[in-house]
Amino acid sequence: MPLSTDQLADVSEARAATASTLRPTVPALEALLHQPLPVLDHGFVRVVDYMGDDNAVVQAARVSYGRGTRKVSEDAGLIRYLMRHRHSTPFEMCEIKYHVKLPIFVARQWIRHRMASINEYSARYSILDREFYIPEPGQLAAQSTSNRQGRGAVLQGDDAEAVLRLLREDAARCHDHYALMLGEEGGGADGGYGLARELARMNLTLNTYTQWYWKADLHNLLNFLALRLDSHAQYEIRVYAEAMLRTVRAWVPTACAAFEEYRLGAFTFSASMLAVLRRQLAGEVVEQKESGLSRREWDEMHRALGRA
Amino acid sequence: MPLSTDQLADVSEARAATASTLRPTVPALEALLHQPLPVLDHGFVRVVDYMGDDNAVVQAARVSYGRGTRKVSEDAGLIRYLMRHRHSTPFEMCEIKYHVKLPIFVARQWIRHRMASINEYSARYSILDREFYIPEPGQLAAQSTSNRQGRGAVLQGDDAEAVLRLLREDAARCHDHYALMLGEEGGGADGGYGLARELARMNLTLNTYTQWYWKADLHNLLNFLALRLDSHAQYEIRVYAEAMLRTVRAWVPTACAAFEEYRLGAFTFSASMLAVLRRQLAGEVVEQKESGLSRREWDEMHRALGRA
Amino acid sequence: MPLSTDQLADVSEARAATASTLRPTVPALEALLHQPLPVLDHGFVRVVDYMGDDNAVVQAARVSYGRGTRKVSEDAGLIRYLMRHRHSTPFEMCEIKYHVKLPIFVARQWIRHRMASINEYSARYSILDREFYIPEPGQLAAQSTSNRQGRGAVLQGDDAEAVLRLLREDAARCHDHYALMLGEEGGGADGGYGLARELARMNLTLNTYTQWYWKADLHNLLNFLALRLDSHAQYEIRVYAEAMLRTVRAWVPTACAAFEEYRLGAFTFSASMLAVLRRQLAGEVVEQKESGLSRREWDEMHRALGRA
Amino acid sequence: MPLSTDQLADVSEARAATASTLRPTVPALEALLHQPLPVLDHGFVRVVDYMGDDNAVVQAARVSYGRGTRKVSEDAGLIRYLMRHRHSTPFEMCEIKYHVKLPIFVARQWIRHRMASINEYSARYSILDREFYIPEPGQLAAQSTSNRQGRGAVLQGDDAEAVLRLLREDAARCHDHYALMLGEEGGGADGGYGLARELARMNLTLNTYTQWYWKADLHNLLNFLALRLDSHAQYEIRVYAEAMLRTVRAWVPTACAAFEEYRLGAFTFSASMLAVLRRQLAGEVVEQKESGLSRREWDEMHRALGRA
Repeated sequence: MPLSTDQLADVSEARAATASTLRPTVPALEALLHQPLPVLDHGFVRVVDYMGDDNAVVQAARVSYGRGTRKVSEDAGLIRYLMRHRHSTPFEMCEIKYHVKLPIFVARQWIRHRMASINEYSARYSILDREFYIPEPGQLAAQSTSNRQGRGAVLQGDDAEAVLRLLREDAARCHDHYALMLGEEGGGADGGYGLARELARMNLTLNTYTQWYWKADLHNLLNFLALRLDSHAQYEIRVYAEAMLRTVRAWVPTACAAFEEYRLGAFTFSASMLAVLRRQLAGEVVEQKESGLSRREWDEMHRALGRA
Repeated sequence: MPLSTDQLADVSEARAATASTLRPTVPALEALLHQPLPVLDHGFVRVVDYMGDDNAVVQAARVSYGRGTRKVSEDAGLIRYLMRHRHSTPFEMCEIKYHVKLPIFVARQWIRHRMASINEYSARYSILDREFYIPEPGQLAAQSTSNRQGRGAVLQGDDAEAVLRLLREDAARCHDHYALMLGEEGGGADGGYGLARELARMNLTLNTYTQWYWKADLHNLLNFLALRLDSHAQYEIRVYAEAMLRTVRAWVPTACAAFEEYRLGAFTFSASMLAVLRRQLAGEVVEQKESGLSRREWDEMHRALGRA
Repeated sequence: MPLSTDQLADVSEARAATASTLRPTVPALEALLHQPLPVLDHGFVRVVDYMGDDNAVVQAARVSYGRGTRKVSEDAGLIRYLMRHRHSTPFEMCEIKYHVKLPIFVARQWIRHRMASINEYSARYSILDREFYIPEPGQLAAQSTSNRQGRGAVLQGDDAEAVLRLLREDAARCHDHYALMLGEEGGGADGGYGLARELARMNLTLNTYTQWYWKADLHNLLNFLALRLDSHAQYEIRVYAEAMLRTVRAWVPTACAAFEEYRLGAFTFSASMLAVLRRQLAGEVVEQKESGLSRREWDEMHRALGRA
Repeated sequence: MPLSTDQLADVSEARAATASTLRPTVPALEALLHQPLPVLDHGFVRVVDYMGDDNAVVQAARVSYGRGTRKVSEDAGLIRYLMRHRHSTPFEMCEIKYHVKLPIFVARQWIRHRMASINEYSARYSILDREFYIPEPGQLAAQSTSNRQGRGAVLQGDDAEAVLRLLREDAARCHDHYALMLGEEGGGADGGYGLARELARMNLTLNTYTQWYWKADLHNLLNFLALRLDSHAQYEIRVYAEAMLRTVRAWVPTACAAFEEYRLGAFTFSASMLAVLRRQLAGEVVEQKESGLSRREWDEMHRALGRA
């Protein structure tokens, strides 16, 4: 169970406390509010607050374009236009806050996104729980031979078991020793050594779970999702992005659909790719060698066109 | 009347639309929500949305400090501690969005604060109203003789009247010519010249009003207020900051009180000032000349101590 | 002459002061260093400092990818790869600082780019020169009838002359009155009124020139250029971007070529556009009506394919 | 030896390559350039590039204040004024880039500073070396009993030895198993399991060393240093800040002295503290209980006054 007893009590309390507001409110997101969506073996994502909705994007764009635009375009059309032309500021007008529990090595990737606010559980002040991420057997992949950052075939049988045993035993032993070093009774062994928390934590493995509050505006959240939903993103962060995408769909369905159409499902053709395309559309047969594209670009382009 | 008829209709509509929410809600801010607070002769500030409350600051700080801290400190004490030690991230967990109408020369100061999201009315797309800021006679100050950026005595009689006439006539004439250049019937004179909006706008004076949506988190809002509530800030932006301070008091009263105690009412003593203080507290009479402080620092320090 | 006598002396002095350094140095940019590139009638852009070069991008990417990658890809190939896949952090490792003189209405667009450092000439402290932007006759365009933010045909004959006269006279009169209000001898009329600078400035028109130091990293500079070199950008800011593009070509030729290939010359096809493309490449004749694309998207797509 | 053979060759090469430049150059920093300053047992900090100097701060401030200010204040006086009044933008005009090797748990604190550019060694692509931070015996502190984030007395004798043994053995075993999981020959045991790098890394402990390029402007660097040189900062990051402070002193000696005077050596008195000070300076004996200050504030204030 990913949430602690205290946290579950907080969720119940929060979900019981209905208030009346004059702010824009999204019933579909209210239905999800505070509830943890499970991710990996002990992690979760849950929305704890939000501000704005699809209409807040429209409202902000319209203050830019001024009076008279109201009738010109439908709201959905305007949102699609803004997304297509990468007008980012209207999407900054919506804000969302998540509570996330995640392995430390995932947190280290995630925090590279700087345009967000974070409060992380601090192991200088507090003691980390004995919880580690151990991959599902189906995720225990070999190093890809073609891609330096990718995964290849799934490990099988004894090999898989051996790896899982190493991961489990090392994480558990390191945490046991962490607890021992921290032990407040002193005198070593069972009593512990009373080591400072800020030092003892260095003995933990990178699959130990941490948690944080993470708050971002819709523009920066979509940038995060575009990168982390990509097929090249590491599986362990992609599953967080997928859970968040569900919350975005509930929150701002029109902006989310535009995001899927113009970002997730899109492909950018370089100047040279456009030149190749023009020749192909004119009926010419173009070879990679004389296309001006590298082998890799050629493949990426034709994969996007379903002709790989 | 600062709001247009359309905008007043929007306010009424927004204030009529009550919804039920599971989010933290602040009744004192709800009472102000959407309502314009008048600033200067045609400007206003109004809160159009918000997220979080005093408790959101506490909640974020507590995830950092972990379980067990709950009983250690009272909430107000924790917020005061965070403010005193400039822990900024918990204050980033609250967000607020304003709709502001302000003269362009004020907007140019305001936008220097980069950690905010802005959608401004665009004079490339739309036509700016014929509204200019003309100072109250009591604000028509002479250049300070002691301070290159300050104001001195208030202009009187004919001088004041002459200056006000220049400001009024120039702004009006420039806007009339702007309208003439834009005129869509063409053929010049009454019919106008049909000039592109993005060009015609360059004829407007800097006291013309513009408007924008401005969204920031509480930490960055307080940074903005600390600078713009300062006695050295220009009066015309300080009055906006004062109106916003009222909304912050309604929204997060504990954080706002801590801000007034530890930032607005505080004074930072340099290393050399501390050395002087120590000698003074020991009963020594210290002269500026041998204090290690410049005349200016000496005065700033003693003003803070009420001994100027 | 866009630079003041003082500034020209600074340029000469700076260009005479050769030093020896262990830092990466780019001779082609050193040749341009400190020299103003004229823009519009009184403006300029000049590079006053820089840090890093093409190789700094490679070096940063290689620390990410670690040992062993050195032989895998050629430097240029790596830079192209990073640009194609929007890896932004290696491009952040290069930094450049410009001194720019520009009309205030252009400065208001420019400052929307928040990821940069700016120090602007302050009219609270100092007096702005009597210099205004007046468009070339060939730039005096009518409002576009098809595009709310665009320009149409160029004004001709008497109309053009009338508009230019209005712009010139209003800017000049406003500045004369500004000088009069500031006049330090007091007593009105010739002696001036001694009004505070921070107030008098509000009488200036938006085509008055200001100046600033503007510093950004290469990643954010390229984002700025991508937006401001676009054919939809206003001419008056586009010419600044064009002058800056010349400096980028001298500074980081490989990164700049990749930028032109993968950003400036590129086009992003949405999911629906890709579906249309696939059908077209398969030889099918697709009509806009049943394409799933709006008229506008259809046109944008086919313009990119040279088949508008 | 903290640098690898490859890196040492890079340092020699970089230090041999003198170039001529028209940019501001700081001989005292050139003398340090590229050279690693050792930190902790295997870490280092080294400056790899920089832009600007003390004079760049002055130059930026002077464009803000305009002509005529040149004689008003001496350069050092201006820099001190800017620092005292927290004018941040002129300090943003200087930029510096470091190459740093540091334990992962230190990197996790460091990266909380978002206003910087980072390229970190990626364990998705490459294999981390078998190097861990093991504290000096003198740093092996017990948890403070008075401060939840602090250190108390140093562990002694058998206890210290036991803790060091645990840290050493766990880090070594985890890295051995990491190498085993990665082993490319497959088949388990000596041959390894061929696990994907992005997965295997999760078995490493938080004291494993990583490295990155870190680039920031002077304003943000000083913010980093102010926080991390503080006596409450964790020792393991403070020593990095101390090494960096040495480089800042060489680079911008005037700005650095002002920083030490107005930030490092300064203390901020709250409104209530100022009220107490005023009474004390008037000769009154004030008791904590009726001072309006908490015990903690009282102590902090009197420690700053050397009267704790």
